[in-house]
Amino acid sequence: MLLLDHFLLISCTAAISTEASAMVIDGKSIAKEIRHEITTEISRMKDEIGVIPGLAVILVGDRKDSATYVRNKKKACESVGVKSYEVCLPEDSTEEEVLKFISGFNDDPEVHGILVQLPLPSHMNEQNILNAVSIEKDVDGFHPLNIGRLAMRGREPLFVPCTPKGCIELLHRCDIDIKGKQAVVIGRSNIVGMPAALLLLREDATVSIVHSRTKNPEEITSQADIIISAVGQPNMVRGSWIKPGAVIIDVGINPVEDATSPRGYRLVGDVCYEEACKIASAVTPVPGGVGPMTIAMLLSNTLSSAKRMHNFQ
Amino acid sequence: MLLLDHFLLISCTAAISTEASAMVIDGKSIAKEIRHEITTEISRMKDEIGVIPGLAVILVGDRKDSATYVRNKKKACESVGVKSYEVCLPEDSTEEEVLKFISGFNDDPEVHGILVQLPLPSHMNEQNILNAVSIEKDVDGFHPLNIGRLAMRGREPLFVPCTPKGCIELLHRCDIDIKGKQAVVIGRSNIVGMPAALLLLREDATVSIVHSRTKNPEEITSQADIIISAVGQPNMVRGSWIKPGAVIIDVGINPVEDATSPRGYRLVGDVCYEEACKIASAVTPVPGGVGPMTIAMLLSNTLSSAKRMHNFQ
Repeated sequence: MLLLDHFLLISCTAAISTEASAMVIDGKSIAKEIRHEITTEISRMKDEIGVIPGLAVILVGDRKDSATYVRNKKKACESVGVKSYEVCLPEDSTEEEVLKFISGFNDDPEVHGILVQLPLPSHMNEQNILNAVSIEKDVDGFHPLNIGRLAMRGREPLFVPCTPKGCIELLHRCDIDIKGKQAVVIGRSNIVGMPAALLLLREDATVSIVHSRTKNPEEITSQADIIISAVGQPNMVRGSWIKPGAVIIDVGINPVEDATSPRGYRLVGDVCYEEACKIASAVTPVPGGVGPMTIAMLLSNTLSSAKRMHNFQ
Repeated sequence: MLLLDHFLLISCTAAISTEASAMVIDGKSIAKEIRHEITTEISRMKDEIGVIPGLAVILVGDRKDSATYVRNKKKACESVGVKSYEVCLPEDSTEEEVLKFISGFNDDPEVHGILVQLPLPSHMNEQNILNAVSIEKDVDGFHPLNIGRLAMRGREPLFVPCTPKGCIELLHRCDIDIKGKQAVVIGRSNIVGMPAALLLLREDATVSIVHSRTKNPEEITSQADIIISAVGQPNMVRGSWIKPGAVIIDVGINPVEDATSPRGYRLVGDVCYEEACKIASAVTPVPGGVGPMTIAMLLSNTLSSAKRMHNFQ
């Protein structure tokens, strides 16, 4: 099922063990490769039409995790040549102040993508704020109009949400067939599970969606050729949930206590990695699997947006 | 699993046979009951605030089947007290002419729902025309913004597409549990299969979507507690596809040759009815199952729209 090309020889390495046989899908290397491709395209666009893609990020409040995400996005922008615009507003800002900045970025021709870092402070209406982002600059792909188009055959969303797009890109770059395969998506969130299911359906997989109300998640999941898990439950998917030879994309990034780690914790996925490695044909590690793909897809969406606005092929 | 109330004693009748045991879900009676409820509500609204719900239907070209559908919708409107506005345009009309009428209905405060009968002549862009219908009057629920909201947790569509809404309403009115059940939707069209899957997911079913690229439709379907089939293949779903006790909603309406019928054909569903009756716990007949529900839901959407616009509870 898996055809290895030159690229894969570098980025997808088989774990060396007598028992473990799964190919490790190296998201870090694949994301690096994608960022390299984006850098080349941005350079070409700048040379040919003098346009530099611009991404505006709005951060409200002082959550440490959000600040880290925004800093990482800024660094990633710089590394590929996307110009980043950052607005940091205090926790007690009003909805109107946020909307004013969104409106300004909507009108700014140098901004091709607008990202509002979530979660917003609880006194703000997230829907109102996200709906205010111009659909042409909705690089997160969370606008209901983009989700609607994603769901509909014959329609094309302007942007696809970054994490599920990254999951599918991993499958494509590892030459893993999707068409006609049985796929199970665990989790049905607006930002990962649901759009991942819609994307798999667009790729002609037979899709089942498993969630917290599912009575027999193990039974259903164990029939899948492709599993995408995005629930945030450490090691929930055990070896017995996995069909031999299945491909596993693990979106979960869950901290678990680990006294041996200097930070006191380590990150694990939704899938029990050690067990998966023995049964699956390919599996993403956590960290270093889906995680690096999310930012790469954000950069890719920003580039696509700039290309579309300037009709640059 | 099935709790019968007074209403069901009338509308859901068990087929009398030594072999057949499935409850027949009598869509015709249930639709009649719903139309009766709508009539009462419309009368109350007229009495209290003097508003009559209005539905505009636009028909382009001279397809006989489309003309029949439009005539049936008009008759249904009259029967419940919805005022219908009809525009019939010749086949060679321009897109601009259709858009002009849509714009007029968008602005008309007496029109609460606008329906463009599909298919449109091939020289017209269906997307452009459907997108022109104001989302507040999109009683068909096909606007991507409505589909997007339907797909997203925490969002509410203004309208749900009529046929899949009718399928879920049949389950509700027959007191068939959906939460936690395994549901299989066969077919992934924009107008039935995909929105039906999204609705079942909102009702907390575990949902699988089977389609033309699915390699083992029988195996997957035979695990379902609830089957909604909308593919247009006469008798495709055989007894062996059905888990004993499953509930079957058959959306297919397929003409098959029948020399014994005066018209030379008869209508059958996607599901082999005779076989289903012996295995399922409940099944919709064709005709007389989902069919009558579609128009009832169109009337229901039109009433909801008028209530929303006039803030009438």
